[in-house]
Amino acid sequence: MSGHAGCRWNCAALSIHRASASYNIRMMQNQNPATFTAMLAKAQQQNQSMLCVGLDPEPTRFPGNFKNDPSKIFDFCAAIVDATADLAMAFKPQIAYFAAHRAEDQLERLMAHMRSVAPQVPVILDAKRGDIGSTAEQYAIEAFERYGADAVTLSPFMGFDSVSPYLKRHGKGAFLLCRTSNPGGDDFQNQRLASVDGQPLLYEHIARLAQGPWNLNGQLGLVVGATYPAEIERVRELAPTLPLLIPGVGAQGGDAAATVRAGLRAGGSIIVNSSRAILYASADQDFAVAARQEALKTRAILQAAATQ
Amino acid sequence: MSGHAGCRWNCAALSIHRASASYNIRMMQNQNPATFTAMLAKAQQQNQSMLCVGLDPEPTRFPGNFKNDPSKIFDFCAAIVDATADLAMAFKPQIAYFAAHRAEDQLERLMAHMRSVAPQVPVILDAKRGDIGSTAEQYAIEAFERYGADAVTLSPFMGFDSVSPYLKRHGKGAFLLCRTSNPGGDDFQNQRLASVDGQPLLYEHIARLAQGPWNLNGQLGLVVGATYPAEIERVRELAPTLPLLIPGVGAQGGDAAATVRAGLRAGGSIIVNSSRAILYASADQDFAVAARQEALKTRAILQAAATQ
Repeated sequence: MSGHAGCRWNCAALSIHRASASYNIRMMQNQNPATFTAMLAKAQQQNQSMLCVGLDPEPTRFPGNFKNDPSKIFDFCAAIVDATADLAMAFKPQIAYFAAHRAEDQLERLMAHMRSVAPQVPVILDAKRGDIGSTAEQYAIEAFERYGADAVTLSPFMGFDSVSPYLKRHGKGAFLLCRTSNPGGDDFQNQRLASVDGQPLLYEHIARLAQGPWNLNGQLGLVVGATYPAEIERVRELAPTLPLLIPGVGAQGGDAAATVRAGLRAGGSIIVNSSRAILYASADQDFAVAARQEALKTRAILQAAATQ
Repeated sequence: MSGHAGCRWNCAALSIHRASASYNIRMMQNQNPATFTAMLAKAQQQNQSMLCVGLDPEPTRFPGNFKNDPSKIFDFCAAIVDATADLAMAFKPQIAYFAAHRAEDQLERLMAHMRSVAPQVPVILDAKRGDIGSTAEQYAIEAFERYGADAVTLSPFMGFDSVSPYLKRHGKGAFLLCRTSNPGGDDFQNQRLASVDGQPLLYEHIARLAQGPWNLNGQLGLVVGATYPAEIERVRELAPTLPLLIPGVGAQGGDAAATVRAGLRAGGSIIVNSSRAILYASADQDFAVAARQEALKTRAILQAAATQ
């Protein structure tokens, strides 16, 4: 498929094309009024999967002819989606990788493509927005209307009114950052709060709020890093029914298995994200085949751990 | 100026146009190698101002013929910039208001316009990004390379390594959310940390980190809401030399004066943001004149408070 620079359409045609893509997304949403939670359960069942395929396109790592060509972001990601549509519980495009390359139009096309080839797989837009109510309202329009996402990731730092505008979109999901496993995750999330009953750690407090008073319409989930299974277990204890989005799992059986044991419960699903191990499984033209192999392998490890 | 839909260029021409706008921004940056801090001091001096003009374009509130027309976001914001270029210490576009309307191209044009008509006024891109290092790197490219911003706002929730990629851009500024005055600002920022020496509140801890160990190259500032002057004073005590970006001041003399007294010190500047009071000072064709009057008034109140 040709990129922007090479195409022959004039701008008026491009605008119509864009408007039409957006319209199609909305139409498909109307035809599929399932909530994010229902879509998640259905995709898990149908694809026998707890695997989330993260879409973090880096042109410098693209294979073959796509290498270093940002106009191929859509083509690259669409090939990954096509190769994993029957293996994924969710897709998670990371918006920064599109924004850095002025590729919002390619993200719009990718969202429409995912809806078209994998209508049963929910899409989580990883944006980690966090702003006051009136601005959050704009970000909610971006995520849910412009891009047609089924769920977003959010930073809870500015408090409940920075989260509530997303909850007005009934049926949409919102994953709050809770405990991240980057080195800086300890800086604040792991601090003990003297002024809250029981002196929980900050991430424990967030888990409680998300399971309880903040979860007005059952739309909330939590982002919990995979590095420390004991912390996943603690979050699961405090938030027994919330979906947990767990990034940071490679194809190593040990980590993945420990993650599943720590996080999966009968009433509480886990969505285990893998991005680079799948996207860049091969640097050659066979990248989509290699991505499928890697996704198959990771899915199998996760499923095996669930039945142990 | 015609919007996207109406133009007659083909897409190849559009790509060239975009690439050229981006190139021009970079060229202008190279011609103006001043650091954000130096630009801020110069703008304050030259425009005799502590006023930041916030650009939060809402088409539903646009005046006259622009009303409800998202293709007029650039025209509206450019008129505000033209009317206040000699009155502002900084401009602060809020990216959510552009993203909700697929108006990234208009934001690119606005950034180039600000650089052209007000080269002495630094531009703070209000994006409140907060993500792990590799993703933060993409957001830094978006803010500093794509849009050519002089500074960004960031959420510190994910810790130091979510901030450090921005600090690699020497000379650029980064304002960390510290104490926000929205209702949810209390939820976490005002919690006392049992596990940090002296049991500071979370926002106090952030202020200390930003003044001290996190401020590797003197690029950090803090975002502190205007609602509670006592808290601005406390932040200033802990961060005596950091620039404070203070949103939430209307044209009321009392608030603005209290804000200046609480935050302004010989070695520590304040950047007092006003958005809607200026942008929507009139709903008619005279909106730019009315915006200028409002900016003049607010600037005067701030300057008067500084000399009391």
